Amino acid sequence: MNLLLLSNSSSDAGYLVHALADIRALIADLPAGAPAIFVPFAGVTRGWDDYGALVAEALADTGLDLQSLHRAADPVAALEQAAFIIVGGGNTFNLLGELRRRGLLEVIARRVRAGVPYLGWSAGSNMACPTICTTNDMPITDPGGFDALGLIPFQINPHYTNAHPPGHRGETRAQRLAEFCAKNPAMPVLGLPEGTGLRVHGAAMTLVGPHDATVFLGQQAPRACAPGALDMRA
Amino acid sequence: MNLLLLSNSSSDAGYLVHALADIRALIADLPAGAPAIFVPFAGVTRGWDDYGALVAEALADTGLDLQSLHRAADPVAALEQAAFIIVGGGNTFNLLGELRRRGLLEVIARRVRAGVPYLGWSAGSNMACPTICTTNDMPITDPGGFDALGLIPFQINPHYTNAHPPGHRGETRAQRLAEFCAKNPAMPVLGLPEGTGLRVHGAAMTLVGPHDATVFLGQQAPRACAPGALDMRA
Repeated sequence: MNLLLLSNSSSDAGYLVHALADIRALIADLPAGAPAIFVPFAGVTRGWDDYGALVAEALADTGLDLQSLHRAADPVAALEQAAFIIVGGGNTFNLLGELRRRGLLEVIARRVRAGVPYLGWSAGSNMACPTICTTNDMPITDPGGFDALGLIPFQINPHYTNAHPPGHRGETRAQRLAEFCAKNPAMPVLGLPEGTGLRVHGAAMTLVGPHDATVFLGQQAPRACAPGALDMRA
Repeated sequence: MNLLLLSNSSSDAGYLVHALADIRALIADLPAGAPAIFVPFAGVTRGWDDYGALVAEALADTGLDLQSLHRAADPVAALEQAAFIIVGGGNTFNLLGELRRRGLLEVIARRVRAGVPYLGWSAGSNMACPTICTTNDMPITDPGGFDALGLIPFQINPHYTNAHPPGHRGETRAQRLAEFCAKNPAMPVLGLPEGTGLRVHGAAMTLVGPHDATVFLGQQAPRACAPGALDMRA
Protein backbone atom coordinates (compact mmCIF):
# COMPACT_ATOMS: atom_id res chain seq x y z
CA MET A 1 0.00 0.00 0.00
CA ASN A 2 0.90 3.61 -0.53
CA LEU A 3 -0.52 5.92 2.13
CA LEU A 4 0.08 9.38 3.54
CA LEU A 5 -1.92 10.00 6.72
CA LEU A 6 -1.53 13.55 8.00
CA SER A 7 -2.46 15.01 11.36
CA ASN A 8 -3.75 18.27 9.86
CA SER A 9 -4.30 20.18 6.63
CA SER A 10 -3.57 23.81 7.37
CA SER A 11 -0.58 25.69 8.69
CA ASP A 12 0.62 29.27 8.60
CA ALA A 13 2.06 28.43 5.17
CA GLY A 14 -1.41 27.65 3.74
CA TYR A 15 -3.68 24.73 3.00
CA LEU A 16 -1.75 21.43 2.67
CA VAL A 17 1.43 23.41 1.89
CA HIS A 18 3.41 21.82 4.71
CA ALA A 19 2.71 18.38 3.22
CA LEU A 20 3.23 19.05 -0.50
CA ALA A 21 6.65 17.39 -0.72
CA ASP A 22 5.28 14.22 0.90
CA ILE A 23 2.18 14.32 -1.31
CA ARG A 24 4.41 14.51 -4.39
CA ALA A 25 6.33 11.46 -3.18
CA LEU A 26 3.01 9.63 -2.61
CA ILE A 27 1.90 10.17 -6.21
CA ALA A 28 5.30 10.15 -7.91
CA ASP A 29 4.30 7.24 -10.17
CA LEU A 30 1.08 8.82 -11.47
CA PRO A 31 1.01 10.27 -15.01
CA ALA A 32 -0.08 13.89 -15.58
CA GLY A 33 -3.83 14.21 -15.69
CA ALA A 34 -4.46 11.01 -13.73
CA PRO A 35 -8.00 10.89 -12.26
CA ALA A 36 -8.12 11.69 -8.54
CA ILE A 37 -11.17 11.50 -6.26
CA PHE A 38 -11.62 13.76 -3.23
CA VAL A 39 -13.98 12.56 -0.49
CA PRO A 40 -15.52 15.67 1.15
CA PHE A 41 -17.98 13.93 3.50
CA ALA A 42 -16.22 14.96 6.73
CA GLY A 43 -17.30 18.52 5.92
CA VAL A 44 -20.31 19.61 7.99
CA THR A 45 -20.26 23.39 8.34
CA ARG A 46 -18.03 23.57 5.25
CA GLY A 47 -20.03 22.90 2.07
CA TRP A 48 -18.80 20.03 -0.10
CA ASP A 49 -18.51 22.19 -3.26
CA ASP A 50 -16.38 24.72 -1.37
CA TYR A 51 -14.32 21.96 0.20
CA GLY A 52 -13.65 20.33 -3.17
CA ALA A 53 -12.61 23.68 -4.63
CA LEU A 54 -10.26 24.37 -1.72
CA VAL A 55 -8.49 21.03 -2.13
CA ALA A 56 -8.37 21.29 -5.93
CA GLU A 57 -6.67 24.65 -5.62
CA ALA A 58 -4.22 23.38 -3.00
CA LEU A 59 -3.24 20.46 -5.27
CA ALA A 60 -3.46 22.32 -8.60
CA ASP A 61 0.29 22.10 -9.23
CA THR A 62 0.20 18.30 -9.15
CA GLY A 63 -1.55 18.29 -12.53
CA LEU A 64 -4.10 15.70 -11.41
CA ASP A 65 -7.67 15.59 -12.74
CA LEU A 66 -9.41 15.97 -9.36
CA GLN A 67 -13.15 15.43 -8.85
CA SER A 68 -15.09 15.64 -5.60
CA LEU A 69 -16.94 12.39 -4.94
CA HIS A 70 -20.24 14.11 -4.15
CA ARG A 71 -20.36 15.37 -7.77
CA ALA A 72 -19.81 11.92 -9.31
CA ALA A 73 -22.87 10.53 -11.10
CA ASP A 74 -21.69 7.01 -10.21
CA PRO A 75 -19.54 7.17 -7.06
CA VAL A 76 -18.55 3.50 -7.15
CA ALA A 77 -17.40 3.76 -10.77
CA ALA A 78 -15.51 6.96 -9.96
CA LEU A 79 -13.65 5.19 -7.16
CA GLU A 80 -13.01 2.12 -9.33
CA GLN A 81 -11.36 4.36 -11.93
CA ALA A 82 -9.50 6.66 -9.53
CA ALA A 83 -5.72 6.65 -9.61
CA PHE A 84 -5.58 8.56 -6.29
CA ILE A 85 -8.04 8.73 -3.38
CA ILE A 86 -8.00 11.75 -1.03
CA VAL A 87 -10.08 11.83 2.16
CA GLY A 88 -10.32 15.21 3.84
CA GLY A 89 -10.78 16.11 7.49
CA GLY A 90 -13.75 17.50 9.37
CA ASN A 91 -16.08 15.35 11.42
CA THR A 92 -15.11 11.68 11.49
CA PHE A 93 -18.61 10.48 12.44
CA ASN A 94 -20.16 12.33 9.51
CA LEU A 95 -17.50 10.98 7.14
CA LEU A 96 -17.95 7.37 8.22
CA GLY A 97 -21.74 7.63 8.26
CA GLU A 98 -21.88 9.02 4.72
CA LEU A 99 -19.46 6.41 3.37
CA ARG A 100 -21.37 3.60 5.07
CA ARG A 101 -24.82 4.77 3.94
CA ARG A 102 -23.57 5.15 0.37
CA GLY A 103 -21.90 1.72 0.44
CA LEU A 104 -18.47 3.08 -0.44
CA LEU A 105 -16.24 1.68 2.31
CA GLU A 106 -15.53 -1.62 0.57
CA VAL A 107 -14.54 -0.16 -2.79
CA ILE A 108 -12.19 2.39 -1.20
CA ALA A 109 -10.49 -0.24 0.97
CA ARG A 110 -10.15 -2.66 -1.95
CA ARG A 111 -8.70 -0.07 -4.33
CA VAL A 112 -6.18 1.19 -1.77
CA ARG A 113 -5.14 -2.35 -0.89
CA ALA A 114 -4.58 -2.89 -4.62
CA GLY A 115 -2.09 -0.02 -4.66
CA VAL A 116 -4.06 3.19 -5.33
CA PRO A 117 -2.37 5.97 -3.32
CA TYR A 118 -4.42 7.24 -0.35
CA LEU A 119 -4.03 10.68 1.19
CA GLY A 120 -5.92 11.50 4.38
CA TRP A 121 -5.75 14.21 6.97
CA SER A 122 -7.43 14.40 10.39
CA ALA A 123 -10.73 12.50 9.93
CA GLY A 124 -9.30 11.06 6.70
CA SER A 125 -6.46 9.58 8.76
CA ASN A 126 -8.85 8.21 11.38
CA MET A 127 -10.71 6.54 8.51
CA ALA A 128 -7.61 4.54 7.51
CA CYS A 129 -7.50 2.87 10.95
CA PRO A 130 -9.32 -0.27 12.14
CA THR A 131 -11.94 1.88 13.88
CA ILE A 132 -12.70 5.57 14.47
CA CYS A 133 -12.36 5.00 18.23
CA THR A 134 -9.40 7.40 18.53
CA THR A 135 -10.93 10.41 16.81
CA ASN A 136 -11.10 13.70 18.71
CA ASP A 137 -14.36 14.65 17.02
CA MET A 138 -17.76 15.14 18.58
CA PRO A 139 -20.21 12.28 17.86
CA ILE A 140 -22.71 14.59 16.14
CA THR A 141 -24.30 11.74 14.17
CA ASP A 142 -24.42 7.96 14.62
CA PRO A 143 -22.26 6.36 11.91
CA GLY A 144 -23.89 2.95 12.33
CA GLY A 145 -20.83 1.27 13.81
CA PHE A 146 -17.28 2.39 14.51
CA ASP A 147 -15.38 0.05 12.12
CA ALA A 148 -13.44 1.98 9.47
CA LEU A 149 -11.25 1.10 6.46
CA GLY A 150 -8.60 -0.85 8.39
CA LEU A 151 -5.78 0.04 6.00
CA ILE A 152 -3.27 0.02 8.84
CA PRO A 153 -3.26 -2.37 11.82
CA PHE A 154 -3.17 0.30 14.52
CA GLN A 155 -4.94 3.52 15.48
CA ILE A 156 -4.00 7.13 14.81
CA ASN A 157 -4.87 10.05 17.07
CA PRO A 158 -4.56 13.19 14.90
CA HIS A 159 -3.84 16.68 16.28
CA TYR A 160 -2.10 14.93 19.17
CA THR A 161 -1.24 17.21 22.03
CA ASN A 162 -1.38 16.89 25.75
CA ALA A 163 -1.69 20.65 26.23
CA HIS A 164 -4.66 21.69 28.31
CA PRO A 165 -6.42 25.05 28.67
CA PRO A 166 -5.76 26.53 32.13
CA GLY A 167 -8.46 25.66 34.67
CA HIS A 168 -9.94 22.90 32.50
CA ARG A 169 -11.19 19.92 34.55
CA GLY A 170 -11.98 17.64 31.64
CA GLU A 171 -9.69 14.80 30.58
CA THR A 172 -6.32 15.47 28.98
CA ARG A 173 -5.67 13.81 25.63
CA ALA A 174 -3.29 11.34 27.29
CA GLN A 175 -6.06 10.44 29.76
CA ARG A 176 -8.52 9.88 26.90
CA LEU A 177 -6.03 7.64 25.10
CA ALA A 178 -5.30 5.77 28.34
CA GLU A 179 -9.05 5.00 28.48
CA PHE A 180 -8.92 3.68 24.91
CA CYS A 181 -5.89 1.54 25.80
CA ALA A 182 -7.65 0.19 28.90
CA LYS A 183 -10.59 -0.94 26.75
CA ASN A 184 -8.36 -2.12 23.87
CA PRO A 185 -5.10 -3.28 25.49
CA ALA A 186 -3.62 -4.93 22.38
CA MET A 187 -4.20 -2.04 19.96
CA PRO A 188 -1.39 0.52 19.57
CA VAL A 189 -2.21 4.19 19.02
CA LEU A 190 0.06 6.61 17.17
CA GLY A 191 -0.43 10.17 18.44
CA LEU A 192 0.47 12.48 15.53
CA PRO A 193 1.14 16.10 16.54
CA GLU A 194 0.31 18.99 14.20
CA GLY A 195 2.63 19.11 11.19
CA THR A 196 3.42 15.39 11.18
CA GLY A 197 2.14 12.42 9.21
CA LEU A 198 2.53 8.69 8.69
CA ARG A 199 3.89 7.52 5.34
CA VAL A 200 3.28 3.88 4.46
CA HIS A 201 4.98 2.56 1.33
CA GLY A 202 4.92 -1.20 0.93
CA ALA A 203 6.33 -2.59 4.16
CA ALA A 204 8.06 0.67 5.13
CA MET A 205 6.54 3.06 7.63
CA THR A 206 7.96 6.54 8.18
CA LEU A 207 7.04 9.37 10.51
CA VAL A 208 7.24 12.57 8.43
CA GLY A 209 7.35 16.12 9.73
CA PRO A 210 9.29 18.09 12.27
CA HIS A 211 8.09 16.61 15.56
CA ASP A 212 8.21 13.39 17.56
CA ALA A 213 5.06 11.29 17.64
CA THR A 214 3.88 9.35 20.71
CA VAL A 215 2.94 5.66 20.78
CA PHE A 216 0.42 4.37 23.33
CA LEU A 217 -0.08 0.67 24.02
CA GLY A 218 -1.95 -0.91 26.90
CA GLN A 219 -0.55 0.08 30.25
CA GLN A 220 2.92 0.84 28.90
CA ALA A 221 4.26 4.34 29.40
CA PRO A 222 3.73 6.52 26.29
CA ARG A 223 6.78 6.18 24.00
CA ALA A 224 8.20 9.03 21.91
CA CYS A 225 9.12 8.23 18.29
CA ALA A 226 11.47 10.47 16.31
CA PRO A 227 10.84 11.38 12.66
CA GLY A 228 12.12 8.70 10.29
CA ALA A 229 11.59 4.95 10.18
CA LEU A 230 8.76 4.01 12.52
CA ASP A 231 8.50 0.81 14.54
CA MET A 232 5.01 0.31 16.00
CA ARG A 233 5.94 -2.95 17.73
CA ALA A 234 6.10 -2.83 21.49
CA MET B 1 -38.37 16.07 37.95
CA ASN B 2 -35.57 16.97 40.30
CA LEU B 3 -32.17 17.12 38.61
CA LEU B 4 -28.73 18.58 39.19
CA LEU B 5 -26.50 18.27 36.13
CA LEU B 6 -22.98 19.49 36.78
CA SER B 7 -20.23 20.27 34.33
CA ASN B 8 -17.51 18.77 36.51
CA SER B 9 -16.80 17.01 39.80
CA SER B 10 -13.50 18.32 41.07
CA SER B 11 -12.15 21.75 41.88
CA ASP B 12 -9.31 23.10 43.97
CA ALA B 13 -11.69 22.80 46.94
CA GLY B 14 -11.94 19.00 46.53
CA TYR B 15 -14.22 16.38 45.03
CA LEU B 16 -17.80 17.67 44.54
CA VAL B 17 -17.17 20.32 47.21
CA HIS B 18 -18.12 23.21 44.91
CA ALA B 19 -21.53 21.61 44.36
CA LEU B 20 -22.40 20.49 47.90
CA ALA B 21 -24.90 23.30 48.58
CA ASP B 22 -26.78 22.50 45.37
CA ILE B 23 -26.64 18.77 46.12
CA ARG B 24 -28.17 19.42 49.54
CA ALA B 25 -30.98 21.38 47.88
CA LEU B 26 -31.52 18.51 45.42
CA ILE B 27 -32.02 15.97 48.22
CA ALA B 28 -33.58 18.24 50.83
CA ASP B 29 -36.71 16.09 51.04
CA LEU B 30 -34.90 12.77 51.66
CA PRO B 31 -34.86 11.27 55.17
CA ALA B 32 -31.56 10.39 56.85
CA GLY B 33 -30.29 7.01 55.70
CA ALA B 34 -32.26 7.02 52.44
CA PRO B 35 -30.90 4.51 49.91
CA ALA B 36 -28.81 6.12 47.16
CA ILE B 37 -27.33 4.40 44.13
CA PHE B 38 -24.12 5.53 42.45
CA VAL B 39 -23.57 4.53 38.80
CA PRO B 40 -19.79 4.17 38.28
CA PHE B 41 -19.82 2.85 34.69
CA ALA B 42 -18.22 5.93 33.13
CA GLY B 43 -15.06 4.93 34.98
CA VAL B 44 -12.53 3.26 32.67
CA THR B 45 -9.04 3.81 34.06
CA ARG B 46 -10.58 4.45 37.49
CA GLY B 47 -11.78 1.19 39.06
CA TRP B 48 -15.44 1.07 40.04
CA ASP B 49 -14.74 0.14 43.68
CA ASP B 50 -12.38 3.09 44.01
CA TYR B 51 -14.83 5.38 42.26
CA GLY B 52 -17.66 4.36 44.54
CA ALA B 53 -15.50 4.92 47.61
CA LEU B 54 -14.47 8.38 46.37
CA VAL B 55 -18.07 9.47 45.88
CA ALA B 56 -19.24 7.92 49.16
CA GLU B 57 -16.56 9.88 50.99
CA ALA B 58 -17.43 13.11 49.18
CA LEU B 59 -21.12 12.72 50.11
CA ALA B 60 -20.60 11.21 53.58
CA ASP B 61 -22.03 14.26 55.34
CA THR B 62 -25.36 13.86 53.57
CA GLY B 63 -26.11 10.79 55.72
CA LEU B 64 -27.34 8.79 52.73
CA ASP B 65 -26.96 5.02 52.48
CA LEU B 66 -24.93 4.99 49.26
CA GLN B 67 -24.22 1.83 47.25
CA SER B 68 -22.34 1.56 43.96
CA LEU B 69 -24.51 -0.09 41.32
CA HIS B 70 -21.80 -2.53 40.22
CA ARG B 71 -21.94 -4.11 43.71
CA ALA B 72 -25.72 -4.63 43.67
CA ALA B 73 -26.80 -8.26 43.41
CA ASP B 74 -29.94 -7.15 41.56
CA PRO B 75 -29.24 -3.82 39.83
CA VAL B 76 -32.83 -3.32 38.64
CA ALA B 77 -34.18 -3.87 42.14
CA ALA B 78 -31.56 -1.54 43.58
CA LEU B 79 -32.63 1.20 41.17
CA GLU B 80 -36.32 0.53 41.83
CA GLN B 81 -35.71 1.08 45.55
CA ALA B 82 -33.27 3.99 45.25
CA ALA B 83 -34.34 7.34 46.69
CA PHE B 84 -31.48 9.09 44.86
CA ILE B 85 -29.62 8.21 41.66
CA ILE B 86 -26.11 9.55 41.05
CA VAL B 87 -24.31 9.12 37.73
CA GLY B 88 -20.62 9.94 37.75
CA GLY B 89 -18.39 11.22 34.98
CA GLY B 90 -15.65 9.53 32.99
CA ASN B 91 -16.22 8.17 29.51
CA THR B 92 -19.74 8.74 28.18
CA PHE B 93 -19.53 5.93 25.61
CA ASN B 94 -18.52 3.42 28.26
CA LEU B 95 -21.29 4.62 30.58
CA LEU B 96 -24.01 4.36 27.94
CA GLY B 97 -22.73 1.03 26.64
CA GLU B 98 -22.73 -0.54 30.12
CA LEU B 99 -26.20 0.79 30.96
CA ARG B 100 -27.59 -0.43 27.62
CA ARG B 101 -26.00 -3.89 27.81
CA ARG B 102 -27.29 -4.31 31.37
CA GLY B 103 -30.78 -3.11 30.40
CA LEU B 104 -30.81 -0.30 32.98
CA LEU B 105 -31.67 2.76 30.90
CA GLU B 106 -35.43 2.32 31.13
CA VAL B 107 -35.59 1.87 34.90
CA ILE B 108 -33.38 4.89 35.56
CA ALA B 109 -35.41 7.13 33.25
CA ARG B 110 -38.71 5.91 34.70
CA ARG B 111 -37.65 6.40 38.31
CA VAL B 112 -36.29 9.89 37.69
CA ARG B 113 -39.41 10.89 35.76
CA ALA B 114 -41.37 9.69 38.82
CA GLY B 115 -39.48 12.17 41.00
CA VAL B 116 -36.34 10.40 42.26
CA PRO B 117 -33.58 13.05 42.44
CA TYR B 118 -30.84 12.64 39.82
CA LEU B 119 -27.32 13.99 40.20
CA GLY B 120 -24.93 13.77 37.27
CA TRP B 121 -21.62 15.34 36.38
CA SER B 122 -19.78 15.36 33.07
CA ALA B 123 -20.74 12.04 31.40
CA GLY B 124 -23.57 11.75 33.94
CA SER B 125 -24.92 15.07 32.64
CA ASN B 126 -24.57 13.96 29.01
CA MET B 127 -26.59 10.89 29.96
CA ALA B 128 -29.57 13.02 31.02
CA CYS B 129 -29.85 14.49 27.49
CA PRO B 130 -31.74 13.11 24.49
CA THR B 131 -28.47 11.73 23.05
CA ILE B 132 -24.77 11.63 23.90
CA CYS B 133 -24.03 13.57 20.70
CA THR B 134 -22.56 16.56 22.57
CA THR B 135 -20.08 14.69 24.76
CA ASN B 136 -16.42 15.69 24.58
CA ASP B 137 -15.31 12.12 25.21
CA MET B 138 -13.39 9.82 22.93
CA PRO B 139 -15.54 7.04 21.37
CA ILE B 140 -13.42 4.27 22.88
CA THR B 141 -16.24 1.71 22.69
CA ASP B 142 -19.42 1.46 20.62
CA PRO B 143 -22.43 2.05 22.91
CA GLY B 144 -24.87 0.46 20.47
CA GLY B 145 -26.66 3.71 19.60
CA PHE B 146 -26.37 7.30 20.82
CA ASP B 147 -29.82 7.71 22.45
CA ALA B 148 -29.57 8.45 26.17
CA LEU B 149 -32.03 9.00 29.05
CA GLY B 150 -33.80 12.05 27.57
CA LEU B 151 -34.62 13.58 30.95
CA ILE B 152 -34.31 17.08 29.51
CA PRO B 153 -35.37 18.18 26.01
CA PHE B 154 -32.02 19.70 24.99
CA GLN B 155 -28.34 18.83 24.98
CA ILE B 156 -25.60 19.71 27.46
CA ASN B 157 -21.94 20.21 26.58
CA PRO B 158 -20.01 19.80 29.86
CA HIS B 159 -16.59 21.36 30.49
CA TYR B 160 -17.58 24.03 28.00
CA THR B 161 -14.74 26.29 26.95
CA ASN B 162 -13.65 27.76 23.69
CA ALA B 163 -10.04 28.04 24.84
CA HIS B 164 -7.57 26.40 22.53
CA PRO B 165 -3.96 25.30 23.06
CA PRO B 166 -1.58 27.56 21.09
CA GLY B 167 -0.71 26.17 17.65
CA HIS B 168 -3.54 23.64 17.69
CA ARG B 169 -5.15 23.14 14.26
CA GLY B 170 -8.02 20.94 15.36
CA GLU B 171 -11.53 22.26 15.80
CA THR B 172 -12.43 24.63 18.65
CA ARG B 173 -15.30 23.59 20.91
CA ALA B 174 -17.55 26.22 19.30
CA GLN B 175 -16.71 24.75 15.87
CA ARG B 176 -17.57 21.25 17.09
CA LEU B 177 -20.89 22.48 18.48
CA ALA B 178 -21.59 24.38 15.25
CA GLU B 179 -21.21 21.02 13.46
CA PHE B 180 -23.72 19.45 15.86
CA CYS B 181 -26.12 22.34 15.28
CA ALA B 182 -25.74 22.02 11.50
CA LYS B 183 -26.73 18.35 11.71
CA ASN B 184 -29.43 18.96 14.37
CA PRO B 185 -30.76 22.47 13.70
CA ALA B 186 -33.75 22.28 16.07
CA MET B 187 -31.88 20.96 19.11
CA PRO B 188 -30.49 23.54 21.59
CA VAL B 189 -27.18 22.90 23.36
CA LEU B 190 -26.30 24.32 26.76
CA GLY B 191 -22.54 24.78 27.11
CA LEU B 192 -21.75 24.49 30.84
CA PRO B 193 -18.35 25.88 31.85
CA GLU B 194 -16.40 24.37 34.74
CA GLY B 195 -17.99 25.11 38.10
CA THR B 196 -21.52 25.48 36.76
CA GLY B 197 -24.54 23.19 36.61
CA LEU B 198 -28.16 22.98 35.54
CA ARG B 199 -30.78 22.62 38.27
CA VAL B 200 -34.19 21.34 37.18
CA HIS B 201 -36.94 21.35 39.80
CA GLY B 202 -40.41 20.79 38.46
CA ALA B 203 -40.91 23.33 35.69
CA ALA B 204 -38.09 25.60 36.93
CA MET B 205 -34.64 25.58 35.39
CA THR B 206 -31.73 27.41 36.99
CA LEU B 207 -28.12 27.88 35.98
CA VAL B 208 -26.06 27.42 39.16
CA GLY B 209 -22.46 28.39 39.69
CA PRO B 210 -20.30 31.45 39.19
CA HIS B 211 -20.11 31.69 35.37
CA ASP B 212 -22.30 32.38 32.36
CA ALA B 213 -23.29 29.41 30.23
CA THR B 214 -23.61 29.55 26.44
CA VAL B 215 -26.62 28.40 24.42
CA PHE B 216 -26.19 27.16 20.85
CA LEU B 217 -29.12 26.68 18.46
CA GLY B 218 -28.97 26.13 14.73
CA GLN B 219 -27.27 28.95 12.90
CA GLN B 220 -28.02 31.52 15.60
CA ALA B 221 -25.07 33.27 17.23
CA PRO B 222 -24.11 31.62 20.54
CA ARG B 223 -26.03 33.29 23.38
CA ALA B 224 -24.63 33.91 26.87
CA CYS B 225 -26.90 33.06 29.84
CA ALA B 226 -26.24 34.48 33.29
CA PRO B 227 -26.57 32.40 36.48
CA GLY B 228 -30.16 32.24 37.71
CA ALA B 229 -33.41 31.39 35.96
CA LEU B 230 -32.64 29.80 32.60
CA ASP B 231 -34.69 30.19 29.43
CA MET B 232 -33.67 27.67 26.76
CA ARG B 233 -36.23 28.98 24.22
CA ALA B 234 -34.78 30.77 21.23
